[in-house]
Amino acid sequence: MLLLARTTRLEDVSSPTEGLSLFYTDLDRNFVDVREIEKMGRKAVDSNEVFIDGLPIPAEDLIGEEGKGFRQILHGLNPERILVAGECIGIARNALARAAHYANERVIFDRPIGQNQGVQHPLAKAWARVESANLMVMHAAALYDAGEPCGVEANAAKLLAADAAVEATEAAQITFGGFGYAKEYHVERLVREALLFRIVPVTPQMLLSFIAEKALGLPMSY
Amino acid sequence: MLLLARTTRLEDVSSPTEGLSLFYTDLDRNFVDVREIEKMGRKAVDSNEVFIDGLPIPAEDLIGEEGKGFRQILHGLNPERILVAGECIGIARNALARAAHYANERVIFDRPIGQNQGVQHPLAKAWARVESANLMVMHAAALYDAGEPCGVEANAAKLLAADAAVEATEAAQITFGGFGYAKEYHVERLVREALLFRIVPVTPQMLLSFIAEKALGLPMSY
Amino acid sequence: MLLLARTTRLEDVSSPTEGLSLFYTDLDRNFVDVREIEKMGRKAVDSNEVFIDGLPIPAEDLIGEEGKGFRQILHGLNPERILVAGECIGIARNALARAAHYANERVIFDRPIGQNQGVQHPLAKAWARVESANLMVMHAAALYDAGEPCGVEANAAKLLAADAAVEATEAAQITFGGFGYAKEYHVERLVREALLFRIVPVTPQMLLSFIAEKALGLPMSY
Amino acid sequence: MLLLARTTRLEDVSSPTEGLSLFYTDLDRNFVDVREIEKMGRKAVDSNEVFIDGLPIPAEDLIGEEGKGFRQILHGLNPERILVAGECIGIARNALARAAHYANERVIFDRPIGQNQGVQHPLAKAWARVESANLMVMHAAALYDAGEPCGVEANAAKLLAADAAVEATEAAQITFGGFGYAKEYHVERLVREALLFRIVPVTPQMLLSFIAEKALGLPMSY
Repeated sequence: MLLLARTTRLEDVSSPTEGLSLFYTDLDRNFVDVREIEKMGRKAVDSNEVFIDGLPIPAEDLIGEEGKGFRQILHGLNPERILVAGECIGIARNALARAAHYANERVIFDRPIGQNQGVQHPLAKAWARVESANLMVMHAAALYDAGEPCGVEANAAKLLAADAAVEATEAAQITFGGFGYAKEYHVERLVREALLFRIVPVTPQMLLSFIAEKALGLPMSY
Repeated sequence: MLLLARTTRLEDVSSPTEGLSLFYTDLDRNFVDVREIEKMGRKAVDSNEVFIDGLPIPAEDLIGEEGKGFRQILHGLNPERILVAGECIGIARNALARAAHYANERVIFDRPIGQNQGVQHPLAKAWARVESANLMVMHAAALYDAGEPCGVEANAAKLLAADAAVEATEAAQITFGGFGYAKEYHVERLVREALLFRIVPVTPQMLLSFIAEKALGLPMSY
Repeated sequence: MLLLARTTRLEDVSSPTEGLSLFYTDLDRNFVDVREIEKMGRKAVDSNEVFIDGLPIPAEDLIGEEGKGFRQILHGLNPERILVAGECIGIARNALARAAHYANERVIFDRPIGQNQGVQHPLAKAWARVESANLMVMHAAALYDAGEPCGVEANAAKLLAADAAVEATEAAQITFGGFGYAKEYHVERLVREALLFRIVPVTPQMLLSFIAEKALGLPMSY
Repeated sequence: MLLLARTTRLEDVSSPTEGLSLFYTDLDRNFVDVREIEKMGRKAVDSNEVFIDGLPIPAEDLIGEEGKGFRQILHGLNPERILVAGECIGIARNALARAAHYANERVIFDRPIGQNQGVQHPLAKAWARVESANLMVMHAAALYDAGEPCGVEANAAKLLAADAAVEATEAAQITFGGFGYAKEYHVERLVREALLFRIVPVTPQMLLSFIAEKALGLPMSY
C-alpha cells in the first residue's frame, strides 16, 4: 500500500504540511484493521476504512525525501484529476452509445423513439458537452506531458467531464424509460459511476474555487 | 392483483382501447409465472415481470363495467401522478434536512461547511424548487378532490416534483462529499429513489408533450 | 419623492441603521440634481442618479417616527419582492402566449414549428416553472395579507419568478428564431424586462443566502 | 452585395436547390429597396429587409458555376458556424474579464464581492464552459483548414460557444447587480450580443438535430 505518514511531530515543524513522509510498504493485517465501506456503486473496487496501529516500516520503503511526502502527493493531484476525467468521458460515451442504440431499436407509435426531438436533443446536447470536455482532458494531459503548468486545465477537465458524465448517463437512463431503472440495461450502473466522480476525489465546489482564483484572479473564499 | 385484460377480441372492437376489462383477482401461481426484476433502488417493493397463462377468473372479480377497463384505468392516472409527486416532495425534504444538518455539523478550515455559499446556495435553490413544486402538488390535489379537471396540474406537479427531487437529493449528496457515496449516510439511497420517479410512471417527455398540448394549445407531436 | 435621510449623526447612534428618517417631500430641482441613467430596458420608467444638496424639508413631511426610517423601509421589502415577482409572472405569461401563437402559425417543412418537440418542450417546461412560481407568489401574498411572517416565501417567490421569467422569455425568443431579435415581435423586449428583475431589487445570491439561513438553518455566509 | 438568385425556373429543375446562381454585384438602389430592421442589439451592423425588382446583373458578376449557387453557399456554412462561435468566445471572455475586475474592486461588508462563492462560482463555471467550447471551435477550425469533414464539430462548436456566451455574459451581469442593467458598464450590451448568436445563423434546435443524426446515428426528426 501507498502510505502518507507523519514522521516528524507537528510541534517540531513550521507548517502542518511538513514532516510527512511517503512509503510504499506491505499491508500487514497484524497491524492494520480494514473495514469495507458499503457504497452506491463502483463495487468492482472496494473502498475501506483503514486503522493502522504500530505497523513497522523498513527504511527502504520510503519514497523520495523524508518529510517531503505531502509535496510528492501534491505532484500527483493534477494527473489524478485528468485520469478521473478520462474515466468520466468513457462512461459517458458508453451511456450515449447504449441510449442511441436503444432509441433506434425501440418503436412506439409506429416509429423509433429516437425520432422524437424530446429524446434525441438531450442526447445530442450531452454528446456536445462530453466531447468538448474531452478536448479539455486532452489539453490538460498534453500540458502535463510537456511538463507545463496544468492546474487550471486539470481542474476544469475534471469539473466538465464529471458534469457531462452525469448529464449523459441520466439522459441515457431517461431514454430507456422504466427499463433504465432495471439492472439488465446497465445504464443505471453508469449513472451511479458518474455520480461517484462528481464528488471524488474532489467536489465541484473545490474545483470552482480553484478556477476562480487561478483563472479569474478572484480572492480565496475560505 | 389488479389486472387489465382483453375480454373482446381486437377485431371485434372499434378502437384498441375498447374491449378491455378490469379485475381484482387472486394471483394463482399455478397460472402465473412471476420473475423479479433487479433494479437500481426502491428495493423495499419488488418489481416483477408477470407471465399469465390460462388463469381462470370468477365473474364476481370484475370491477366496473365489462369492456370499459381502459377508461377506468385512465381515471386513476391523475391521482397516481399527484401521489408520486407527493412522494418526491417527501424524499426531497428528507434529503435537504440531512444535508442541512450535516452542513451545520461538519467543520473544515475552522468553520461549518454550510457557511460556504458554494454549499448553501445549491441547497437553498433546491428548497425553493421543492416547495413551489409542492404548491403545485397541493393545487392539483385540491382540484381533484373538488371533482374539477386537473390533468395539466397533475402532469406539471409530477414533472416539477420529480425534477426538484433529483436536484435536491443530488445537491445533498454533493454536500456530503465522498461520504455521500457511502450507504451509511442514506442520501445515496434518496438519490436513487428520486431517479426512479423521474422516469416512472411516465417520462418527462410525455409530461411535456401533454402540457404543450393542453396548456399552450400546441399540436400533438407524435 | 420618498426619501430616507440621516437625521442623527452616525457617531451619536448605537447602530448605523438607527438615526435615519423617512420623508415624503417635494423634489425641488433647486436643491436636487437628477441625471438619467441609460439602461438595457424598462424605458417607460426612467432611472436616475440623484444628488441632493441642502434641500429644506418641512417637519410635516416626516413619515412615521423620527430616526426609525430604516425599520419602516424594511417593512416594505417583502411586499416589494412579492410585487416584483408578480410582474415577472405577467411578463413570462405574455412571452409564452406570443411564442405559442407563433409556433402554431409558422409553418416550415409543411408543418407548424410548434409540432416539433424541440420547440414545444422548452415552452412547456417554462410554463410549469412559471405557474409553480406563481403559486409561491400567491402563497407569499396570502401570508402577508394575513399579517403572518412571509420573509422566506417572499424571497423564494422573487427568486423563482424572476428565474422562470428569464427562462420563459428566452425560450420564447428562441422559438421566433432570428425574428426574436427584431423589435417588431416584442419578445426581445420581454427578455430585457425579465433580465432586470433577476438583478433588482436584490440579486439571486442575496435571496439564496436568506433562504439558506431562514429555511435551512445554515450559518450567515458574509 | 453577395446575392443568391434563381436563374432556372423551378419547373425546369429536378430539385428546388438546383437552378440557383451566386453573384457578387452592385447594390443599385434604383432596383433595390432596403428597409432597416430595428433590433435588440448589434447596432454597429444594421440588418435589413431587401426587396429587389428588375436589377440587371452583368454576366461577369457570376461566382462559380451557373445553377450551382446553393451548393456553393452550403460550402460556407461550416466556416460561418466556426466564425460565429469564435465571436461568442470573444464576447464571453470580455464579459468574464469585466466581471472579475469588478468583483475584485467592489467592496461590500468589508470585502470584495468576488470573495463570495455565490459570486465567484458562477463565473468560474462559465469560464470552464467557455474555454472548453473554445477548444471545440479550434478543433473544428483545424479540421476545416485541413480539408477534413467538420460538420459535426462546427455545429457543436456553435452550439457550445453560444450557450457558454449567454451563460458567461448573464453571470457577468448578475455580478454587477443593478449596475449590470446600466449601459455604462457594457455588460448588458454583451448579454444582447450573446443572445443574438444563440438564434442566428441557426437555432440550437437545428444544431441538436444535426448532431443527433450525424454523431449519434438517430433518425431525422422533421
